[in-house]
Amino acid sequence: MGDPEYALYYWPGIQGRGEFVRLALEEAGASYVDVARLPRSKGGGVEAILRVLRGDLGPHLPFAPPVLRAGEVVVAQTAAILHFLGPRLGLVPRAPELRLWAHQLQLTITDLVAETHDTHHPVAVSLTYEEQRAESARRAAYFTAERLPKFLGYFERVLDAGGGRHALGRRFSYVDLSLFQVLEGLRYAFPLTMGTLAPRIRRLSALAEQVRMRPRVAAYLESPRRLPFSTEDVFRYYPELEAATPEAQGRRRTRGRRS
Amino acid sequence: MGDPEYALYYWPGIQGRGEFVRLALEEAGASYVDVARLPRSKGGGVEAILRVLRGDLGPHLPFAPPVLRAGEVVVAQTAAILHFLGPRLGLVPRAPELRLWAHQLQLTITDLVAETHDTHHPVAVSLTYEEQRAESARRAAYFTAERLPKFLGYFERVLDAGGGRHALGRRFSYVDLSLFQVLEGLRYAFPLTMGTLAPRIRRLSALAEQVRMRPRVAAYLESPRRLPFSTEDVFRYYPELEAATPEAQGRRRTRGRRS
Repeated sequence: MGDPEYALYYWPGIQGRGEFVRLALEEAGASYVDVARLPRSKGGGVEAILRVLRGDLGPHLPFAPPVLRAGEVVVAQTAAILHFLGPRLGLVPRAPELRLWAHQLQLTITDLVAETHDTHHPVAVSLTYEEQRAESARRAAYFTAERLPKFLGYFERVLDAGGGRHALGRRFSYVDLSLFQVLEGLRYAFPLTMGTLAPRIRRLSALAEQVRMRPRVAAYLESPRRLPFSTEDVFRYYPELEAATPEAQGRRRTRGRRS
Repeated sequence: MGDPEYALYYWPGIQGRGEFVRLALEEAGASYVDVARLPRSKGGGVEAILRVLRGDLGPHLPFAPPVLRAGEVVVAQTAAILHFLGPRLGLVPRAPELRLWAHQLQLTITDLVAETHDTHHPVAVSLTYEEQRAESARRAAYFTAERLPKFLGYFERVLDAGGGRHALGRRFSYVDLSLFQVLEGLRYAFPLTMGTLAPRIRRLSALAEQVRMRPRVAAYLESPRRLPFSTEDVFRYYPELEAATPEAQGRRRTRGRRS
């Protein structure tokens, strides 16, 4: 066996944004190495990521992990990595307009993930959750009452418009894998809210179950390569964040516009 | 004259995320209509956007503006729009790996814009700034002390690695236009901080001046099509947000990791 075709660089110990890339690589049965999870003696550990952020992989400097190396290509930004990998792994149609549509959906998933992250880090990533608890409670209340239903309602409508089986309609794609991952994460982080929303996201839930049963995904989920969710990760379970309700609920604006 | 080749749908009255697309269309001298800025009698106004969000342009449903229509193609998400427009407008090299690199940089600009937005909306987009003033002050303090220097330092290093003239090295691209816009916005919103950072972002500042003097950009900036910055927009000037300093400064973590 030669060198693996792909090298993924992501924080070891958490699923994080790297998990969207891992799921695509796993579903495709790709040959890859999760570099930072190797022992330090084999070039792994957090040091491997710090080297990449310093520019050790060449002039296309990443701002943050995940970073993927595929031969001469080095690419960062989760959605860009999937946009690059999609056609190579057979996880997106090759027609440019469908590839663009898949990417657009992935970028909206990226936005949802960022907003979810900020429910426990609304002030600063350099502070712990405990240092921004009050702000977190307030932000999480609006997130679960307004933003989460808006995002999930959007994806449900997309599934509906496409016929319901896959994000892109008839064709399975990496977007389905990412929607599965987001749903898993949200159910871990906000179980009560997700329970309440369940009747409004039947197509999304069915899609997630379908993805979970794909043979390679199922094997991955049972393997030691799949890390558990935790309160060190993007999706975090803090029961107190579901207890709050927005003080302003009832006077919700008609337009929740994000300028 | 026939129909314009491109239709842009974005909130009228603000620059917002639409401005990154406008700058690309303007620099290329493209034929486009800024639909929502037309009078309602001609199909403009906010109603035009609401129709698009309801799906009036077809099955590729956008989550939020900006949305671009080019013939049969309908695409949302600022960075995806620029990724699509880039080769058509001659604003990015056609080599796939350079196009991907440009897109990766644009996605990091997108992250910076989102974090800038959240300095005045750290709790909820459905609340006014005044309703989240305390949280804004705390978030803005960390943003100006930690995140902004990190982002701008990153782009400065990218310019440095590429030779300094353009984001992609020798070739001008839409990324340069976006970096100009971000710098303009940040100087409006955080004049003191940007003054302090100036010596550390010489290459970025030179790039922005270069972009400003491009004939079509210069003409656009002086035209009524260029809207002024304002406190209704993504970049907002609230002097009090520059007055705060992070209570935790001095014990800054070594790793400002975003899980």
